Amino acid sequence: MLAEIITIGDEILIGQIIDTNSAFISKELNKIGVQVFQITSVQDDREHILQALDEAAGRAQLVLVTGGLGPTKDDITKLTFCEYLGDKMVENQDVLDNIHHLFQKYFKREPSPTNLHQAMVPSSSTVLQNLHGTAPGMWMEKNNIVYVSMPGVPYEMKHLMRNEVIPRVVSRFNRPHIYHKTLLTYGMGESSIAERIESWEIALPAHVKLAYLPNLGKVRLRLSAKGPDQRALQEEVDGLMEELWKMNDDIAVGYEEETSIDRRIGALLKERGQTLSLAESCTGGAITEEITQHAGSSAFYRGSVVPYATELKTSILGVPAQLIEKYNVVSEEVARSMAVQSQQVFKSDYALATTGIAGPSKGDGTDEVGTVCIAIASPKGVISERFLFGQLRERIIRKAVNKAFEMLLAEILKN
Amino acid sequence: MLAEIITIGDEILIGQIIDTNSAFISKELNKIGVQVFQITSVQDDREHILQALDEAAGRAQLVLVTGGLGPTKDDITKLTFCEYLGDKMVENQDVLDNIHHLFQKYFKREPSPTNLHQAMVPSSSTVLQNLHGTAPGMWMEKNNIVYVSMPGVPYEMKHLMRNEVIPRVVSRFNRPHIYHKTLLTYGMGESSIAERIESWEIALPAHVKLAYLPNLGKVRLRLSAKGPDQRALQEEVDGLMEELWKMNDDIAVGYEEETSIDRRIGALLKERGQTLSLAESCTGGAITEEITQHAGSSAFYRGSVVPYATELKTSILGVPAQLIEKYNVVSEEVARSMAVQSQQVFKSDYALATTGIAGPSKGDGTDEVGTVCIAIASPKGVISERFLFGQLRERIIRKAVNKAFEMLLAEILKN
Repeated sequence: MLAEIITIGDEILIGQIIDTNSAFISKELNKIGVQVFQITSVQDDREHILQALDEAAGRAQLVLVTGGLGPTKDDITKLTFCEYLGDKMVENQDVLDNIHHLFQKYFKREPSPTNLHQAMVPSSSTVLQNLHGTAPGMWMEKNNIVYVSMPGVPYEMKHLMRNEVIPRVVSRFNRPHIYHKTLLTYGMGESSIAERIESWEIALPAHVKLAYLPNLGKVRLRLSAKGPDQRALQEEVDGLMEELWKMNDDIAVGYEEETSIDRRIGALLKERGQTLSLAESCTGGAITEEITQHAGSSAFYRGSVVPYATELKTSILGVPAQLIEKYNVVSEEVARSMAVQSQQVFKSDYALATTGIAGPSKGDGTDEVGTVCIAIASPKGVISERFLFGQLRERIIRKAVNKAFEMLLAEILKN
Repeated sequence: MLAEIITIGDEILIGQIIDTNSAFISKELNKIGVQVFQITSVQDDREHILQALDEAAGRAQLVLVTGGLGPTKDDITKLTFCEYLGDKMVENQDVLDNIHHLFQKYFKREPSPTNLHQAMVPSSSTVLQNLHGTAPGMWMEKNNIVYVSMPGVPYEMKHLMRNEVIPRVVSRFNRPHIYHKTLLTYGMGESSIAERIESWEIALPAHVKLAYLPNLGKVRLRLSAKGPDQRALQEEVDGLMEELWKMNDDIAVGYEEETSIDRRIGALLKERGQTLSLAESCTGGAITEEITQHAGSSAFYRGSVVPYATELKTSILGVPAQLIEKYNVVSEEVARSMAVQSQQVFKSDYALATTGIAGPSKGDGTDEVGTVCIAIASPKGVISERFLFGQLRERIIRKAVNKAFEMLLAEILKN
């Protein structure tokens, strides 16, 4: 069964915002065996929206639309839907109550006429109550095609998808089965992996596809399969995945659907009752942010210091000033000292340290832009490595983050 | 003049990656007066790609395609283009040389046959040399429509857009003028702003559009205008923007095209020769990461500590343990102490501190999930405020980051 997504908003087409909604919606639909055939981003423009709805309806049975539902004047999605359905707008009491409730709770004031106007919906639509905002979701039908309209604000859309849209799609449509599984690997390039598994890949059955998704030091290997029997499909892909893992045992981190490298690290540390601290210089908090974004990180993560100015490596972490002078601030020696000191200061079992030149200027170092030293202190000692990560700041930081996680996981697995 | 973007890749349609390329391409095209009419994401599938190319060609004069150019077997874009053009594939010597050069420089080995195969391109295409990867960009024409094919890897695509595609588009097409300007505001909701400026908005000329782009504590107000005379257009919008700024002087931070709130803060501090440090508990490095992502932050940013475990607030920052016991770790008192201590430890003029409960569990605090206290120590003293930011971890952190920047900027402007 096919679906299409239409995202509405000039801000997408002028590049002012990145459309993250489509990826979320696609993922949720995939889980229940609905395949997204196409994603289309169109203007806040009546004719363009009507055209996109028509085209999507020619290809899919379910059309999900986000955006264009705000209280302000640039949003015309709802009126256009009403026209498309040949319907008229009516005030919906549930939406009205919800608007009053939200204003009372969060803004301690009465909603304005502009806010109350959001309670108007096409008369034939089923309202999907938006508990996190004043714009309602709507479920509509025309010629046996289902149209769903949701606000573009990501967390409002996510709530509606999970609680209102997915359950309705499940009961409304018969769906075939799609199954994906993705192996996360770190430390080897796409083409090297491809050569390593070439004969296995050629021998894959026709209904199973392999995709390579490379990104700055990691490559994701995704198997996708479609078939009539969910259980058989899953067993088949799981079996193939085990083969793929075995062939790549030296670089495999886990299945993406179950973990990420930082989650894997967190899970291992929690399981062992061990802890982690970070001393991030050139990565400037990027590793810390990655770890703390997940709930439950406080169970193993102690804290970080980002000693951006060179002398803070000494004053806060206690890295000897003469070490920095002798070896240079960007050196394996300083990285190792940062890790060991961090381990002590934070009283953690493991400590990860980065020092490098993210560029574009050379800072206090004398080395080439892109030079990064990473060290890991573990209960058994300290290791370090020096890298050259190219020229672009953003990429240097991202590669250093990926490499740091790769080294940390390897070190934890060794101990 | 209209363009369309087609992004190719099953990984987009199953939601495995977020399409960030389209936003970048749209922004670059907008700067030179090319309007993106539609963005379409399609499968790695010959027929679907052919259909999308045909549809886009019916609406636009320029069709930019990303993705589907990797060395592995899931990528079929190039062959499909060749078929679409009625062309044949030939080996391109420049691409071949580039592949050899990249392998020598970065991998210290010979490219494989799979890698060398990437030198095949449709014979009528103009190769756009990709200095950062082995997949070449291609510029093609059919029936007076220009097609550009670029790799999907963001930094490779960005390089090609800036250095190869944009200059060619500029010399190939006559373009009308589009002008956008966006005012960043913090601290007031979309509908309150809309009511405040209602009569002004209604009186806007027809060729000028106003859009509201709200996001967790900030609202961006974008004016867009189209017209024949670039200079007149710019003057008109700049004038309107000044009016809009005046009406919103209490919440305006700057023009997004020129700044962001963290850049504005950085610029002010640099100008004054002042410095900043951070003590981030509940925001877990998110503010630090925001600041260090920009080149040049080391000129004003000293460093951060993320004392995630409660006792580290005492051992590393020197927050008195009895203060934490008396007031609770999530309190304005503790936030203020963290800020003042951070100011001293890092020897910075300003220090920003956060402590709160990002959830989903309550951690060491006893307060409601979503409670966040933010404090700022300045050369003149310390201020603090307590907030309730809802239920969702990701949103709580993001709102705290936005609010912290808002408070910090206000404090810097006061001094």
